[in-house]
Amino acid sequence: MDCQKIIDRVYAEVKAGENLGQVAAYIPELSKIDPDRFGICLTSIDGRQYRAGDAEEPFSIQSIAKVLSLSLAFACIGEPIWKRVDVEPSGTAFNSLLQLESENGIPRNPLINAGAIVVCDILCGYFREPKKELINFIRRAANQPDIDYAADIAASEKSTGYRNFALINYLKSFGNIHNDIDQVIDLYFNLCSIKMNCVELSHTFLFLANNGVQLESGETLLDSSRTKRINAIMQTCGFYDEAGEFAYRVGLPGKSGVGGGITAILPNEYAIAVWSPRLNKKGNSYRGMKFLERFTTETESSIF
Amino acid sequence: MDCQKIIDRVYAEVKAGENLGQVAAYIPELSKIDPDRFGICLTSIDGRQYRAGDAEEPFSIQSIAKVLSLSLAFACIGEPIWKRVDVEPSGTAFNSLLQLESENGIPRNPLINAGAIVVCDILCGYFREPKKELINFIRRAANQPDIDYAADIAASEKSTGYRNFALINYLKSFGNIHNDIDQVIDLYFNLCSIKMNCVELSHTFLFLANNGVQLESGETLLDSSRTKRINAIMQTCGFYDEAGEFAYRVGLPGKSGVGGGITAILPNEYAIAVWSPRLNKKGNSYRGMKFLERFTTETESSIF
Amino acid sequence: MDCQKIIDRVYAEVKAGENLGQVAAYIPELSKIDPDRFGICLTSIDGRQYRAGDAEEPFSIQSIAKVLSLSLAFACIGEPIWKRVDVEPSGTAFNSLLQLESENGIPRNPLINAGAIVVCDILCGYFREPKKELINFIRRAANQPDIDYAADIAASEKSTGYRNFALINYLKSFGNIHNDIDQVIDLYFNLCSIKMNCVELSHTFLFLANNGVQLESGETLLDSSRTKRINAIMQTCGFYDEAGEFAYRVGLPGKSGVGGGITAILPNEYAIAVWSPRLNKKGNSYRGMKFLERFTTETESSIF
Amino acid sequence: MDCQKIIDRVYAEVKAGENLGQVAAYIPELSKIDPDRFGICLTSIDGRQYRAGDAEEPFSIQSIAKVLSLSLAFACIGEPIWKRVDVEPSGTAFNSLLQLESENGIPRNPLINAGAIVVCDILCGYFREPKKELINFIRRAANQPDIDYAADIAASEKSTGYRNFALINYLKSFGNIHNDIDQVIDLYFNLCSIKMNCVELSHTFLFLANNGVQLESGETLLDSSRTKRINAIMQTCGFYDEAGEFAYRVGLPGKSGVGGGITAILPNEYAIAVWSPRLNKKGNSYRGMKFLERFTTETESSIF
Repeated sequence: MDCQKIIDRVYAEVKAGENLGQVAAYIPELSKIDPDRFGICLTSIDGRQYRAGDAEEPFSIQSIAKVLSLSLAFACIGEPIWKRVDVEPSGTAFNSLLQLESENGIPRNPLINAGAIVVCDILCGYFREPKKELINFIRRAANQPDIDYAADIAASEKSTGYRNFALINYLKSFGNIHNDIDQVIDLYFNLCSIKMNCVELSHTFLFLANNGVQLESGETLLDSSRTKRINAIMQTCGFYDEAGEFAYRVGLPGKSGVGGGITAILPNEYAIAVWSPRLNKKGNSYRGMKFLERFTTETESSIF
Repeated sequence: MDCQKIIDRVYAEVKAGENLGQVAAYIPELSKIDPDRFGICLTSIDGRQYRAGDAEEPFSIQSIAKVLSLSLAFACIGEPIWKRVDVEPSGTAFNSLLQLESENGIPRNPLINAGAIVVCDILCGYFREPKKELINFIRRAANQPDIDYAADIAASEKSTGYRNFALINYLKSFGNIHNDIDQVIDLYFNLCSIKMNCVELSHTFLFLANNGVQLESGETLLDSSRTKRINAIMQTCGFYDEAGEFAYRVGLPGKSGVGGGITAILPNEYAIAVWSPRLNKKGNSYRGMKFLERFTTETESSIF
Repeated sequence: MDCQKIIDRVYAEVKAGENLGQVAAYIPELSKIDPDRFGICLTSIDGRQYRAGDAEEPFSIQSIAKVLSLSLAFACIGEPIWKRVDVEPSGTAFNSLLQLESENGIPRNPLINAGAIVVCDILCGYFREPKKELINFIRRAANQPDIDYAADIAASEKSTGYRNFALINYLKSFGNIHNDIDQVIDLYFNLCSIKMNCVELSHTFLFLANNGVQLESGETLLDSSRTKRINAIMQTCGFYDEAGEFAYRVGLPGKSGVGGGITAILPNEYAIAVWSPRLNKKGNSYRGMKFLERFTTETESSIF
Repeated sequence: MDCQKIIDRVYAEVKAGENLGQVAAYIPELSKIDPDRFGICLTSIDGRQYRAGDAEEPFSIQSIAKVLSLSLAFACIGEPIWKRVDVEPSGTAFNSLLQLESENGIPRNPLINAGAIVVCDILCGYFREPKKELINFIRRAANQPDIDYAADIAASEKSTGYRNFALINYLKSFGNIHNDIDQVIDLYFNLCSIKMNCVELSHTFLFLANNGVQLESGETLLDSSRTKRINAIMQTCGFYDEAGEFAYRVGLPGKSGVGGGITAILPNEYAIAVWSPRLNKKGNSYRGMKFLERFTTETESSIF
């Protein structure tokens, strides 16, 4: 099969169809994006890249970055991480706080906000300079020393992030934040601020399709067994309340962000990144979901 | 690798370890089982079988059968099935009824009780003789004309199944049961009453590892694309509130039952059935989970 | 003050205002009512009656009758009743089933459906002929031997009462129904079927304003201390999710029904019944609430 | 009846009985209290006072003070207060955050923490010096210019009050906090820090039994109609998840605090304050509840 041809065709089909949903509007940096931007990049484990549309336009990857902080924390402390956060899907969104309450401050999984905040706390406890270590890890995964936090986005998130302040204080009331609230939340908002384009994003996630090994450097970012486990968590928890739908329609482990990005991987084959800012009702990219469903159907890519 | 040797070794290790948890006690047919029975059978898509322990001892497969009724209903009516039931994991068990309420009588997925009851209603609406058609489908998957409902278990379930009567009436109040309540619940209780041994069970589920094709007959029970989707649903919804844990530790799509059975499949490779009656706190076989975790680690079987 | 004049004036004012909300539509016997019927009767403990509008038009009192079955059960078995049902307000409606689940089948209070079903079960366990005893009790309270169950309404409720069948099965699954489900639910549906007019209804509830003593016969239906406790329960639990609003605006213990009736009492003074079929969003009579708020303000009737 | 004799006898009886439950332990100022302190004072609207035990020992009134801030806010802005906070009982404690979520940041009532924080925000928006105005209002009610905030308790609450920080941030995320978070939470923590003894506390609440009029000064702190409404809110919402139980057993509007204080009023008769630090499982004073139940039974004090 000619991967580029399929990508081009599916890209054209989806672009020709309607573009529904809303762009995330809670901070200006997201709301002012052109809602019709649409980019794709697939990076295969033999290093080839296939692009379409706005593949080189940087965007805010938002929650997609939570997989990277999780990978680093898991590499650092291993299994004890699961004493602080669970690995179960979260069910309906509106239960998030109820679940924290009934489960004594242990977040359902590390890819919802509460869980990602706990992961940031773990990094703050492990490293003397967690902010620096985290971005270094991401740069090594991306093989790109320029990747950086976007200070303006982080500040914007912070100025309106009352719900995340509520979460971290609530977690602290259960004793599940060990470090200073201000330091932890600063790391969290910075994590969510990172910008990449589709080329960089698919490249960054390639190690998860490659048994934890970074392609160019050959560095093992995460051992093979833990890599599979991160993929399993993406599969069950990566899409808010649409994890089942994504498994059903796309059949690959992945993670989405409110910036309209989605990344997914096919183990031992490729990582793919798609970006289109309009979000469906569940908060995932409308065109991103459409593209991945058709692309995986055509290529018969599925872990199932 | 020598599959039989690995099975034998892991079986021996798990058998030598402790056997914790409780046997399901709500009906006599389950509670009077010897809690130390322990059987395994793996059937590969080339037809070989590897057994250990009580592999030929029949047991009540209970909820595992829900995958089979779902497969039949999906084969019959296709995508419209998802208007009646969703494909999302259910989150914490205690929310089941709350979720039905807040989601207007649409069960979270077809593998929880509420969803399986709706699937039975679909079969009652589609077939003139749903009970006969369902068992025939299962016999064809099993390549075993003797498989049958266990009338005594069905009767026992019915006499104490107040929660399921509550569910079906509740579903009906939302208009999501179209047929006579008594007929639908009878089909449901019969479905849950089926007995198989591990050899039969792994054989029955083999079509899901084989793109929907029954091995001996070559019959396509479900087309390839739909087969992948059933596997995706097992992955995200097959283990009550332990779906994430199973994905994390075992890494295969599967389904468990309160009788202590678990079945799992590795696409294009094999189906495996494990049975040990003691259940962990989440309601899944204690030794079954242990065996599958170690077996998949040793064989590096994982979809991730 | 001239009670009749105030009633006439407030009646006229409320009738002149708009009549919003919906008539309950789940059974034909309720949906076909003229939505503009509007009746009032106040009976004082010295036996005088003040009427307005359709005070002599019978209507389905529905849940208002739950106070009467509760009074009888409380008179029969006393404090042990609270082992089976609690006395707390239920909070938001959508929690009803969740609460049953988290509180192990003990309904929040005896005036929600689940609680009233448990009360019916208590009566079924106490009396050989509970249906006869219950209507006799109500006839004695009403001093009216003609009051009876409305077989057609009971049958209609039964044919569509899936949610109540769900509740009773759910309660049974927790062991909180001791008698035959069919007998208990039959008593419950009959209880809800009773028809009275405002004159009869205010007269029937007068004993709760009169320390438990029926006015004409002098019979003590409930002792003085228990009467106060029934009034306390009406105060905190009598208006679904609007109990606080009713306490705030009206300031009297009372109970409403989906037929559009509301009854309320001022201890040692009077019982009042209002009927107007259109219901506000919380399920209480739109005009009934308006009338009682203005009437109690003008007469400065309030327990606070 | 001789009120002092009854108080003395019931006091002695309750003191002779067991003293169960736990002292609130989340801040040292509460945990280090002698758990056997037990004081009572009843102040009647003719100005007489009846005391028993440690009636003159000051204690932290905690949440009882929420009635006072509510009274002031209600006096200031009237009915529009209910656009910001509802008047319904909160149901089970564990729902508090779920309810805020499902009800868009409108707290269930002004006597739970979330509601009291919104009331503090209202005071911050109304007054230039809210902290000063609030304590002045309380001093006028108490006819006691010495009443003051306890800076050490407020600081202690603040240093561990993560759950309240979570709440205020969560409320802010819904737009239901209009002023600076730090200012509002400071007022809230100060409000909860106030210390009084039973004599002062019963005196302070007397205006609620006296149609809003302060006894000595004759000042109308709240008009008669609004006073009744505050009493109605205490009745339905004053005892966390035990509001129904208190209405059932005691039959008076009241409010409790985790410091072990309870105050209750009988309209047009008296205000009573009881203090005993051990709390029952629902968070209300074990002996306080016992005393009030027996005292109101003996004196036949009940609004019902």
